[in-house]
Amino acid sequence: MGPGAEFDMIRSIWRRIGGTAAASGDDCAFFEVDGARLAISSDLSIEGTHFQAGWMGLHEIGWRAATAGLSDLAAVAATPLGITVSVGVPAERPEGDLAEVMEGVAEATKEAGAVIWGGDIVRCDRMVLDVTVVGRLEKDPVLRSGARVGDGLFVTGQLGGPAAALAAWDGLSEPDALARARFVRPRARIVEAQWLRDRGAHAMIDVSDGLLADAGHLAAASEVACVLDLNAVPVHPAAVGREQALTSGEEYELLVALNGDDSVVGEFSGRFGLSLTRVGRVEAGSEASVERDGVVVSNLSSFEHF
Amino acid sequence: MGPGAEFDMIRSIWRRIGGTAAASGDDCAFFEVDGARLAISSDLSIEGTHFQAGWMGLHEIGWRAATAGLSDLAAVAATPLGITVSVGVPAERPEGDLAEVMEGVAEATKEAGAVIWGGDIVRCDRMVLDVTVVGRLEKDPVLRSGARVGDGLFVTGQLGGPAAALAAWDGLSEPDALARARFVRPRARIVEAQWLRDRGAHAMIDVSDGLLADAGHLAAASEVACVLDLNAVPVHPAAVGREQALTSGEEYELLVALNGDDSVVGEFSGRFGLSLTRVGRVEAGSEASVERDGVVVSNLSSFEHF
Repeated sequence: MGPGAEFDMIRSIWRRIGGTAAASGDDCAFFEVDGARLAISSDLSIEGTHFQAGWMGLHEIGWRAATAGLSDLAAVAATPLGITVSVGVPAERPEGDLAEVMEGVAEATKEAGAVIWGGDIVRCDRMVLDVTVVGRLEKDPVLRSGARVGDGLFVTGQLGGPAAALAAWDGLSEPDALARARFVRPRARIVEAQWLRDRGAHAMIDVSDGLLADAGHLAAASEVACVLDLNAVPVHPAAVGREQALTSGEEYELLVALNGDDSVVGEFSGRFGLSLTRVGRVEAGSEASVERDGVVVSNLSSFEHF
Repeated sequence: MGPGAEFDMIRSIWRRIGGTAAASGDDCAFFEVDGARLAISSDLSIEGTHFQAGWMGLHEIGWRAATAGLSDLAAVAATPLGITVSVGVPAERPEGDLAEVMEGVAEATKEAGAVIWGGDIVRCDRMVLDVTVVGRLEKDPVLRSGARVGDGLFVTGQLGGPAAALAAWDGLSEPDALARARFVRPRARIVEAQWLRDRGAHAMIDVSDGLLADAGHLAAASEVACVLDLNAVPVHPAAVGREQALTSGEEYELLVALNGDDSVVGEFSGRFGLSLTRVGRVEAGSEASVERDGVVVSNLSSFEHF
């Protein structure tokens, strides 16, 4: 687990209930049944906390909630099997609305090669969506804790789109169409993660709290320092500068620690039509930091969603 | 699946997203991984919808939420392996409160022989708890759909306690201590369910909507009629009459269709210190009905929680 108030709280609670908990601090928990190896994760999205109803269509709300969960499976290189979806839905919203949310969930689930197993539906005064995903591990999972001194840090895609969309909505304006698309229709990098695992990824995390914050989680779990090069961060065209790209959360791109030359970059983008960018390096030490032109930039605060 | 508005809605949505859904209409969904057979279920509890904060302590809220999920595993005779817990918690509630909820979850989970794998914590203006349970199937699951004409209908425990507690709270009075205990500290009948499976139970369901409503679900899934004998319903000492016992929900007792004589009753209660009562029979036909002194009582409405 990384730093921050949410992690401190979880750690404290985990200590209190320690006798029965099996928390790994990774994006998923792992378990074995009769020789089968599985990964599981839950993600709770609440209207008003994680999104405003006016920002997105119902289909998009469903897609996003499912993708947040599926991305946790991607982060450990698991293959999605199925999901359960619990939905709290306002009483005044007709059945058709709930169906539209579930269609978004179903589309994301199907694209990931998984199925919806079931769930629960209850009345609530706002939309609540909790998605639990279960995946199969064909090989050892890629953990947050495996980064080694000398590894390069790579990130998939371009960052900053979701933050740009949120900034627009906060200013009561309509976001740029590409930035909006990054927020309402993120992709879980499932096959990309398995390819990176097979190319020898030592550690992996999905960018949900922001590149800097998630590099901090990786550093803490691996007991290393993660040094990001601000000039190298791949910036989404709609993002306002590199700082926004560094702190934009809910990207669901992958941050990977990998020991290798830049041939992996060309191979990856050639295969997936998605950029892979070397954004930093793993050093001895602790914490995540950001350099610009070789000088540490110290005053960037990380994005905390709790 | 049984009758009622909730089931109609779920059925309609399932039709729309049918391509990816694998809904069974049972208390759990089932899946196989590398030869291992698993069952999974999710239960969402929301403050204001399922409970009021003043009714229960935080530990009890956690216990109840976990037990509702674990009872779904019991209903199919699965062995609990682990759970994930997503919690929405009001910002003004301190960390200690969240820990207390999780201790209740942990205690119920430990008693069921399972572990907490992980979950999610987010801010919300009310307590939200979604529990996903995963269990292992050592043998074929006992489904709702297996009841056969000629089976007897049996129920574990005594019914009506939760309804009596709710009625007291609705009247702004304190419930009877035993009734309250049935509401705040229900038990998932896990080992009892496996014993009943091994004794040849044809169909099983946990009593979450009320005996009559759940007998209706069993009848619908099995395409039979379930006839309950009002005089035979085991009434909790604090319940106000048999009607309350017939409609009291969230009991988490088991309703079982089993072809056998009453020797099962004595064996069961001798082994578990819990009553097993013959409450009716399975006939050709459809729907659930209630007889008193051999005459059908037609005006009992079922409890609907949605």
